[in-house]
Amino acid sequence: MGFEITKELLEDVKGYIDTSNNKSLLALFEEMHHADIAEVLDELSFDEAVFIIKLLDSETTSEVLMDVDDDVREKILQKLSAKEIAEEVEELDSDDAADIIAELSEERQEAVMSQIEDEEHVKEIEELLAYDEDSAGGLMAKELVQVNENWTVLKCVKEMRIQAEKVTRVHSIYVTNDKGTLKGRLSLKDLLIASTRTPISEIYIPKVDSVNVDESGEEVANIMRKYDLEAIPVVDNEGLLLGRITIDDIVDVIKEEADKDYQLAAGLVEDVEADDSILELTKARLPWLILGLFGGLGSVVIMEGFESAMNSYKELFFFTPLIAAMAGNVGVQSSAIIVQGLANDNVKGSLWKRLLKEVGLSLINGLVLGVIVIAVAPLMHLSLQFSLTVSISMLCVIIVASLIGTFVPIILDKRGIDPAIATGPFITTSNDIFGIFLFFMIAKAFLPF
Amino acid sequence: MGFEITKELLEDVKGYIDTSNNKSLLALFEEMHHADIAEVLDELSFDEAVFIIKLLDSETTSEVLMDVDDDVREKILQKLSAKEIAEEVEELDSDDAADIIAELSEERQEAVMSQIEDEEHVKEIEELLAYDEDSAGGLMAKELVQVNENWTVLKCVKEMRIQAEKVTRVHSIYVTNDKGTLKGRLSLKDLLIASTRTPISEIYIPKVDSVNVDESGEEVANIMRKYDLEAIPVVDNEGLLLGRITIDDIVDVIKEEADKDYQLAAGLVEDVEADDSILELTKARLPWLILGLFGGLGSVVIMEGFESAMNSYKELFFFTPLIAAMAGNVGVQSSAIIVQGLANDNVKGSLWKRLLKEVGLSLINGLVLGVIVIAVAPLMHLSLQFSLTVSISMLCVIIVASLIGTFVPIILDKRGIDPAIATGPFITTSNDIFGIFLFFMIAKAFLPF
Repeated sequence: MGFEITKELLEDVKGYIDTSNNKSLLALFEEMHHADIAEVLDELSFDEAVFIIKLLDSETTSEVLMDVDDDVREKILQKLSAKEIAEEVEELDSDDAADIIAELSEERQEAVMSQIEDEEHVKEIEELLAYDEDSAGGLMAKELVQVNENWTVLKCVKEMRIQAEKVTRVHSIYVTNDKGTLKGRLSLKDLLIASTRTPISEIYIPKVDSVNVDESGEEVANIMRKYDLEAIPVVDNEGLLLGRITIDDIVDVIKEEADKDYQLAAGLVEDVEADDSILELTKARLPWLILGLFGGLGSVVIMEGFESAMNSYKELFFFTPLIAAMAGNVGVQSSAIIVQGLANDNVKGSLWKRLLKEVGLSLINGLVLGVIVIAVAPLMHLSLQFSLTVSISMLCVIIVASLIGTFVPIILDKRGIDPAIATGPFITTSNDIFGIFLFFMIAKAFLPF
Repeated sequence: MGFEITKELLEDVKGYIDTSNNKSLLALFEEMHHADIAEVLDELSFDEAVFIIKLLDSETTSEVLMDVDDDVREKILQKLSAKEIAEEVEELDSDDAADIIAELSEERQEAVMSQIEDEEHVKEIEELLAYDEDSAGGLMAKELVQVNENWTVLKCVKEMRIQAEKVTRVHSIYVTNDKGTLKGRLSLKDLLIASTRTPISEIYIPKVDSVNVDESGEEVANIMRKYDLEAIPVVDNEGLLLGRITIDDIVDVIKEEADKDYQLAAGLVEDVEADDSILELTKARLPWLILGLFGGLGSVVIMEGFESAMNSYKELFFFTPLIAAMAGNVGVQSSAIIVQGLANDNVKGSLWKRLLKEVGLSLINGLVLGVIVIAVAPLMHLSLQFSLTVSISMLCVIIVASLIGTFVPIILDKRGIDPAIATGPFITTSNDIFGIFLFFMIAKAFLPF
């Protein structure tokens, strides 16, 4: 294993393109996996990438197109004619084909579709385009091996050979009745062992996991992960077999969901990579920074309101960043646990119980941290009264911050909004403001200013 | 699809256990998937869970044991005798069996191993135990379908039937020479189509992806994801076929890695779930909070050092939490992008180029944010000199924060330390301190105090 893009390789490719040395290019790419070719294309200039796509046969380039970065694909598609795109699409399974088509403008979609020769493929793509791309319908492919419960093993094997030609990976064989309703599955192992005249109805496994076509991709991922499935059939409300989802697409869903949540928690609004352009990175980073800035300006205003405390207790202002940081950290911790729990579908029990738990947890954390402050205070020449005040208000801030961190995501989730946006800078910023305000309010109650 | 644990179900189960109604329990669990049974067990008391494990047959319970929460499994294993554990282990594939054995104390490991009847299974488990659990060796199973290149299709199918009995899922059929060196793979599809007398050497695919036994689990996941593989053979340095890794285990690796990185970014030191006990949650949350507290105390000391500024420029202290927040947000953004890039293996190019890019990016972000501050300043009755000072020092703080966020993970990674620890509270806290110090230093240079 181990394909690595080297400087030499890139220079070779660029050199061959410059001199239109097609023979060497073809020889070079012939032995390469399409995912590796895609990696090379990501490193080339846009014109060079188009040159390669037009040079290689569409059986290869269709797969390469699925593997290049989204922005590279978008640009390449713009440079290809409707006929050329249709040729790529014809090589792809229905799910990938629909993904490519969905990226085109409506006019181009029609132009490309009219150029596809295989009418069944067109019908399949049109069906898939109608589903939400994040639903089971948007993830499934129409290609699968489907046998009738009334067939014999012999007929089944014969039909399978024909169907298998069109299917990249066989996985389970789905058994349906005459209407097309999913009845069960047939294991390849059982098929290998059974005699040729056995009817399928005798050897198929009547239990089969399936998902509804409207199920969310995240839920499909949870089901496939839980039950260790490599493919799952998709059915409509009547149980009719519509397609199947394979684990390789679900692996991408899991990875993308995880990356998205991670980026939201880190305050990035778009899917960016370290090697994206400065402009793309700015677009991803600036929005949360601006939110953070306005949050910070809010806390400036709050502190101005407590300006009078400065005469007698200037240390309060030295402690403000600490309080804000604790509020932020606690909030992010609470929200991360809840957001992950919601995504994995394991947040159970009543809201009241959760509230009590968060308060209990915050009490323990807050007491430990408060004791540390009181213990350290003499070294910093702070009075007991002052350090007690800081500790008590820190305790309150931690409780409030953890409640905000826990319940904002839960509320968002109940309203159908992705709770992952309520992590990172959102929670930090709002907790900064609440924390600083609470800190000064409590200090005011305990200290004479 | 859709198994849901209901209150009624749990009450039924608890009731049957109380009245030792084994018949009803067996009937209830008979139709359930082992992953669902595991979910039920997670909700029961520990004694109830052990009762169920002892009641059901080991074919089912061995799989259930793999699916329950780690802490539940640990407790159940403590209550089972060496003989009982051996019975569970005998039902499991070698990789799962080794995982269970690895969780036992050394004495118990020996006791259990001596009770396993299948000597080959013992040998396989012992081999697997020798590998690092995060390596390809630690992830692979010994069960696979392996055929000799010198066999015919007929002999191959015969041998496969025997081997397939032991293998849960067939996936690819691996082709080796007489020495056991991996030569290629055989697709089930090709096997279905070929005539029985064809020699395997004529129909096998000589290209097969494989990973070295010492490769890290994360790297195996990257390879399988990139090439859309559902199983990958594992070889030693000489190319000898040792085992294979299946995608269901890799899905878990991807999910666990993502969860771990997310939790580290959120300041959680252990893998916790929303439904864990308060003690477990405290253990996960308190360490970073204590670090944050000491960081905050550090910034208190820094601000004390600039106490003299309070007479003429008290607003500086109102702006400190804002500066700290910006430093934290920028640092987390930068580190998240790099940590994700390192995990996905797409951080390329020289460090110098990356440095220039981060500075450029920070300049753009810092300028935009600085302009906002200057624009808003008159509304807050701040002088132009003051708002300019804040903007310039904020710009510097953002540049430094983004450099710390970018290069600390890179340095950690180069030293073989998981860069993911340098996200979240670690970066926020260190950037708070650096940011506040820098802010006052620059302010001192521009403002007379």
